[in-house]
Amino acid sequence: MTKKPNLRELKTILDERRVSAGPSVLELHSHDESFHAPALPDVVVWPYTTQEVSRLVRYAFKHKMPVTAWGAGTSLEGNPIPVKGGMVIDFTQMNRIIAVRPEDFQVDVQAGVIYKDLNKTLSRDGLLFPPDPGAAATIGGMIGNNASGIRSVRYGATKDYVMRLVVVLPGGDIIHLGNRARKSASGYNLAALITGSEGTLGIVTEATLKLVGLPVNFMAVRTTFPAIFQATQAVYSIMRSGLTPAAMEFLDANVVHVLNADRGLTLEENPTLLMEFYGFSEQGLREEMQFVEEICLENGALSIDQGIGAEERSRLWDIRHQTYESIKRHHPELSPLIMDVAVPLSRYSEMVDFSKETVRALTAYLFGHAGDGNIHVHVMDNPHDPKRWAKVEEATRLIVMKALDFEGTCTGEHGIGIGKNRFMPVEHGESYELMKRLKAWLDPDNLFNPGKFFPL
Amino acid sequence: MTKKPNLRELKTILDERRVSAGPSVLELHSHDESFHAPALPDVVVWPYTTQEVSRLVRYAFKHKMPVTAWGAGTSLEGNPIPVKGGMVIDFTQMNRIIAVRPEDFQVDVQAGVIYKDLNKTLSRDGLLFPPDPGAAATIGGMIGNNASGIRSVRYGATKDYVMRLVVVLPGGDIIHLGNRARKSASGYNLAALITGSEGTLGIVTEATLKLVGLPVNFMAVRTTFPAIFQATQAVYSIMRSGLTPAAMEFLDANVVHVLNADRGLTLEENPTLLMEFYGFSEQGLREEMQFVEEICLENGALSIDQGIGAEERSRLWDIRHQTYESIKRHHPELSPLIMDVAVPLSRYSEMVDFSKETVRALTAYLFGHAGDGNIHVHVMDNPHDPKRWAKVEEATRLIVMKALDFEGTCTGEHGIGIGKNRFMPVEHGESYELMKRLKAWLDPDNLFNPGKFFPL
Repeated sequence: MTKKPNLRELKTILDERRVSAGPSVLELHSHDESFHAPALPDVVVWPYTTQEVSRLVRYAFKHKMPVTAWGAGTSLEGNPIPVKGGMVIDFTQMNRIIAVRPEDFQVDVQAGVIYKDLNKTLSRDGLLFPPDPGAAATIGGMIGNNASGIRSVRYGATKDYVMRLVVVLPGGDIIHLGNRARKSASGYNLAALITGSEGTLGIVTEATLKLVGLPVNFMAVRTTFPAIFQATQAVYSIMRSGLTPAAMEFLDANVVHVLNADRGLTLEENPTLLMEFYGFSEQGLREEMQFVEEICLENGALSIDQGIGAEERSRLWDIRHQTYESIKRHHPELSPLIMDVAVPLSRYSEMVDFSKETVRALTAYLFGHAGDGNIHVHVMDNPHDPKRWAKVEEATRLIVMKALDFEGTCTGEHGIGIGKNRFMPVEHGESYELMKRLKAWLDPDNLFNPGKFFPL
Repeated sequence: MTKKPNLRELKTILDERRVSAGPSVLELHSHDESFHAPALPDVVVWPYTTQEVSRLVRYAFKHKMPVTAWGAGTSLEGNPIPVKGGMVIDFTQMNRIIAVRPEDFQVDVQAGVIYKDLNKTLSRDGLLFPPDPGAAATIGGMIGNNASGIRSVRYGATKDYVMRLVVVLPGGDIIHLGNRARKSASGYNLAALITGSEGTLGIVTEATLKLVGLPVNFMAVRTTFPAIFQATQAVYSIMRSGLTPAAMEFLDANVVHVLNADRGLTLEENPTLLMEFYGFSEQGLREEMQFVEEICLENGALSIDQGIGAEERSRLWDIRHQTYESIKRHHPELSPLIMDVAVPLSRYSEMVDFSKETVRALTAYLFGHAGDGNIHVHVMDNPHDPKRWAKVEEATRLIVMKALDFEGTCTGEHGIGIGKNRFMPVEHGESYELMKRLKAWLDPDNLFNPGKFFPL
């Protein structure tokens, strides 16, 4: 398919130990955390600098070799799988926090920094980079996928924190996008175009991220409802009330069941909402807590457990952070496929019901970021059993098509990768053609992460 | 320059009374609220629908006629001035609120809706579209310029509220961008590319906007400092404290002087901060108020006036909303040029000092959105006196260049229009070339709002 890379020539760009075509290295870069079929790259390289990335891309383009950027490999839709082989640029050696600028609420980082490490460093200055996909993702990967997570109902997604980018374009040119002002109305927002483009239009090597102050105090609520629509109605009422939730998570009854089984808990196995609020004054949080309780009771809550302060928050939220691992442990022989549709809030309850019905015959768990209308249907099955897996794929299709009927999206936060290619034309209609034309204009030989967004 | 339009042909697209080349109509569409030289269009049209806009654009492109979208004409940098004549598409008849969707925290609007009218309607449902440029701008104009205002320190700019767009592309094709989910990681973010592009890449005809719940309770603070850097330091300390200010405005001493003179007030004529906070519990706000007071005193505040509730907020903030008009009334014979640079927060104080020094010999007033690092230098002078005006222009140049030295932006919220063209290459460096290429790719004949972003 592509010419084998000339390692000797590559080793004039990077020193020897940062270029590898060793089988175990290639294997490690052939798959992410998804079930998607692996594909081996021809070579893996570990640059230290933007200049090196530029030279590597120039080399690759000279040889018409595909180039795929690689963060931590934690994505869930095959986003960095090098389906056409070629060069994988591994950013794990570009993991420098270049400068924390507390007075500007900004940080400059290389793309390979792990966001959890970043937040550890930032906490010393009372600062936070809010998007939180959960896994130990790199900033570059998060920008590539426009990652988000539990707190995005309050803080938004990665795109809301990208101020400046250094980007290597197809061909190898380096460009700088954005500025350090907290707002700007100058020029085309190319940084927003690159963010979420999964390395198909440009490779992000450095970023300046906007930060927020760490929350001072916490209030958390765990509440259960007899039916999903009551939980959803409570979400809506709370968001409407003038309160500002920091997180609003939904767990279906069978998720709670797995948590009980896996961790020896005795939680009530009903549709559950986990909520978190930030505040300054304890008295203020206490009044908010009371109000949230009223709203939950009005919407038929069966039980409410709540508390103020960091410890209470940990106690009430701990189960949420264990969900993914508990489900995996509960089915050690199976692989996960995590659906990730998002719909307008008014459709959340219907979407959850439809999803449950659709996966009824499968081993599946529903949870999600209810405040964002984002649902994860976590199916455990065997991708190597074609007959069974066909059913999983068909359920995905039905659920995505329903989400699109509801004017939602095929992916709230996991990105398109390989897994969602087929839904791009349905979701984007005429603008899909414009996206294709844009890609062909910037990368006519289709060398930047080929096979993502658009099928080969 | 361009062929005169054939009104008869145009009147087959729109009925007669929605096509005009009458002198007074052309004159009304030859200037915005800036001092920039007016330019007459050849014809003004008032479509009702996206389909009509598409047909008008097709007609214009067939005749190689420039097309400029027109909202309310309230912009400040000549953004909608039809410098090459041609067709102005006036959106004031496309002012329908298509659907308020309270349960989704969304509204669908035509581009010609005035945002203040929209917020009046939304308030019935307890909802708010937060960006607030001040003037009676249309949603289309706000999207074109990525408008923002006083509350953007809390809520961000227009770009943060654009969920879906209907856009007419150069040539006349209609595309739909985005979806109704509160978050999405699907496809290229073309809506973000269109937002802030000032009608040079596409014309927005309809939009779905994200909304927030109206704040429940208010706390406001007006405080003065002996020196600007103390005011700035207070801004920084408050933002760092875990509080979430909704607005943080700076007024220089001479602005307060004009307010006193114009409105018969007796405010202390010192650097002044106006702040606003939203909250749920009165007790919570009271504690926050106390904490803000402490921070201000630690930073040398001379006076603090503060209060809780909507009335107190109006009392304390009233002067801010009068600033623009008071300055204008104070110099009835002169015209305003409002500079609009934004810099990283750590540079705000230096930037204010430098700006004051630079405009020392001019009639100028400094105020701005301190929480965003955005400074407005409001110069009153006579654009028809070339010698004097050259000094104003030179001051603009020096102030913008300093902001760019500080890694800021030449415009925080007013956009590029005509006035900031010359700074685009300086601000954007190599990416300016990419912006030019992008424009040429999408609009090879340069017919959509020519002369903006890139000089003719």
